[in-house]
Parts: sequence; C-alpha cells; structure tokens
Amino acid sequence: MALTNPVPMGPWKITVYDQEHFQGKRMEFTSSCQNIMECGMDNVRSLKVECGAWVGYEHSSFCGQQFILERGDYPRWDSWSGSNAYHIERLMSFRPVCAANHKESKIVIFERENFIGNQWEISDDYPSLQAMGWPSKEVGSMKVQSGAWVCYQFPGYRGYQYILECDCHGGEYKHYREWGSHAQTCQVQSIRRVQN
Amino acid sequence: MALTNPVPMGPWKITVYDQEHFQGKRMEFTSSCQNIMECGMDNVRSLKVECGAWVGYEHSSFCGQQFILERGDYPRWDSWSGSNAYHIERLMSFRPVCAANHKESKIVIFERENFIGNQWEISDDYPSLQAMGWPSKEVGSMKVQSGAWVCYQFPGYRGYQYILECDCHGGEYKHYREWGSHAQTCQVQSIRRVQN
Repeated sequence: MALTNPVPMGPWKITVYDQEHFQGKRMEFTSSCQNIMECGMDNVRSLKVECGAWVGYEHSSFCGQQFILERGDYPRWDSWSGSNAYHIERLMSFRPVCAANHKESKIVIFERENFIGNQWEISDDYPSLQAMGWPSKEVGSMKVQSGAWVCYQFPGYRGYQYILECDCHGGEYKHYREWGSHAQTCQVQSIRRVQN
Repeated sequence: MALTNPVPMGPWKITVYDQEHFQGKRMEFTSSCQNIMECGMDNVRSLKVECGAWVGYEHSSFCGQQFILERGDYPRWDSWSGSNAYHIERLMSFRPVCAANHKESKIVIFERENFIGNQWEISDDYPSLQAMGWPSKEVGSMKVQSGAWVCYQFPGYRGYQYILECDCHGGEYKHYREWGSHAQTCQVQSIRRVQN
C-alpha cells in the first residue's frame, strides 16, 4: 500500500441510527439535516461516516455543542463528544464540512480578540499549542485562510471543540463568542486540520 | 512570532494536585512516579504539564488505562480521559515519554497480528485512518521506528488510547494485548505523534 493517499472529495455520506451500536431506525444522508426529528427520529445515538467530513450539533438548526465527525464508526455518543463536564447525549442536526487538501490548510491565531496581539500562522496539527511556543492557554481570535480546523479547550484534542471554516464568516472569528453558541471562554490548547 | 518552533527537550516537569482545578495538596515531579499514594496523595485530580510529554495511568505501577499528557493545563479527569464508556477518575502513576523530533516520527501499521498483511508507513497525524485509505477500522500490529505515538479506538482521537514508543518492546507491538493492559480489541481508527 502506497503512502500517497487518494483523498476522497465527496460526495458526502453519513448513516445515522436512533439506537446505540448501529441498531434501530437507520437513515442515510448526503447533505445537511437541520432537525432529525423532522425525519421521524427522536435523536441520533450512533452513526457511520462513510464519505467526507461532517459536523454534528447538540441542538437542531446547527446550534449548541459541536462535534467533528470524520470517516469511521461512532457506536455511542461518547465516541464523538469531547467533554464530560457538560454531558451531552444529543445530536439533533448535522452538515457536511469542506476541508482543504491536507497540506494546504492554513489558519492564523491571534493573542487577543479582533485580530490583535501576537499572531501565529499554522498549517499543521498541534496537540499542545503551548509545547510549540504559544505563550498562553488562550487564543483571542482566529482567521481561517484555507480549509477547515477544529480547536479544542484542552491539550490532546479534548474538551469543548469548535469547528472553524474558511467558508463561514469569511473565515474570520474575531471573538470567542463567534466560535460557537456554546463557547464560554477563549481557552484553546490544541488545534488540528479537519480531514476529508 | 516565527513559525520555527524551538522544541523543548526536557527536563520533564509535571505538577499534580489532589483536588480538581489545581487545588489541595500539590507536588512537582521531574521523573516517573510509580504510586502516588506513596507520596501521600490518594489520587491525582488535576495537573499541569510544564515540560515534556508524559503518560498517566489509571493504576499504580503504570497499569490500566493510559492517558497521554502534553504541555498544558488539565483541571479535571475528563480533560485527559478519552472514553466515557469506561468511566475513569483515577490517575495513580505517571512517567515521562521520549518523543522524537516531530518531523522524524515514524510507525508502520499492519493489517494483521505478528506484522503480516497489508502494511502502511506513517509519519504524520491521521484523525481518520479510513479516510486516508486504510481498509478497516482495525489494526493488527504495529512497529514504532522513531518517536512516540498515540493510537485511539475512534476517529478524531477519541475512545481508548494506547501510547506506543520506539523505546519500549524495541518498538514492536505484535498483538493488541501488548498495546496496554486495558486493550480489549484491535480497533484503531485514529493515530498521531506525541508532541514534546
């Protein structure tokens, strides 16, 4: 098997189930779903991402906690959730994410809100920003220049997650409140590219 | 701030607390601790990694579930634990990990145990192995050629984690039972380098 990886560029496909471990009612989607209850399911309790990257949301209409979903099997809520502190077993809406070619993804992080203070251009994955020289456990604002990114509250890709895309807000996230409706602090200790 | 990152090469330093949110009794370590109870603490409930990468263990003597700990702040058990399915609030022993220079880390994964079947040489982070072409959600065996790696049960660096090092077992992990005393299946859907 070669190391040069053929990156699938869609079409997106996700299969969701209303019971854990791929049981119960089953539905396939190739585009976004704003409210799973309108499809006759009360909740999504397991899922398989078959093509592309997706974001799942705690609430309908793409609100609440966000969960990045890349290709693979997710048998229970805790296989996608990043935080136990705010225990979430709901996944009510989801949508595809456009990731760039892995090598071309780029984001600039800023020490303070409104794109001021120290800045750092990133084009790789960082399980600990501080280990690589970022001076604090916080990030004030971010500009996505290419692709899609996930940043996390704790090192090692744990805690609250925020999906940031060059196609949303023109890629500009000037205050932590713009990262997601559940963002309560600007604490960001790890960051990585989304993989298509 | 430049993009060329000065990678700190130790000395390792970790500060542990017996209460959440960096409260209670506090101790600093620069080398491994085989049993935190011998230091007069009943458990580690929060910690700060100040230098180097570490592995924490559920039980004393480096047994049970493993948790990679890179530089940053961990205010509660769920900021280092990867799985809720097997709910763990214990961290009883820990030790430093030798990571390679980030660009030089290398591991070979094999489809079946004892280093047979399809194989794939990896020198980058993969939040979804399947998205990049690996044909299954399982890995049979692994050879670490350089550095230290973390592999995870689920995509996106979630679920059970296994720390694999070129300095342990000569880097050879020929069966999932050698990945860690808590390994129950050969399910591995994401893998990444450890960052020093």
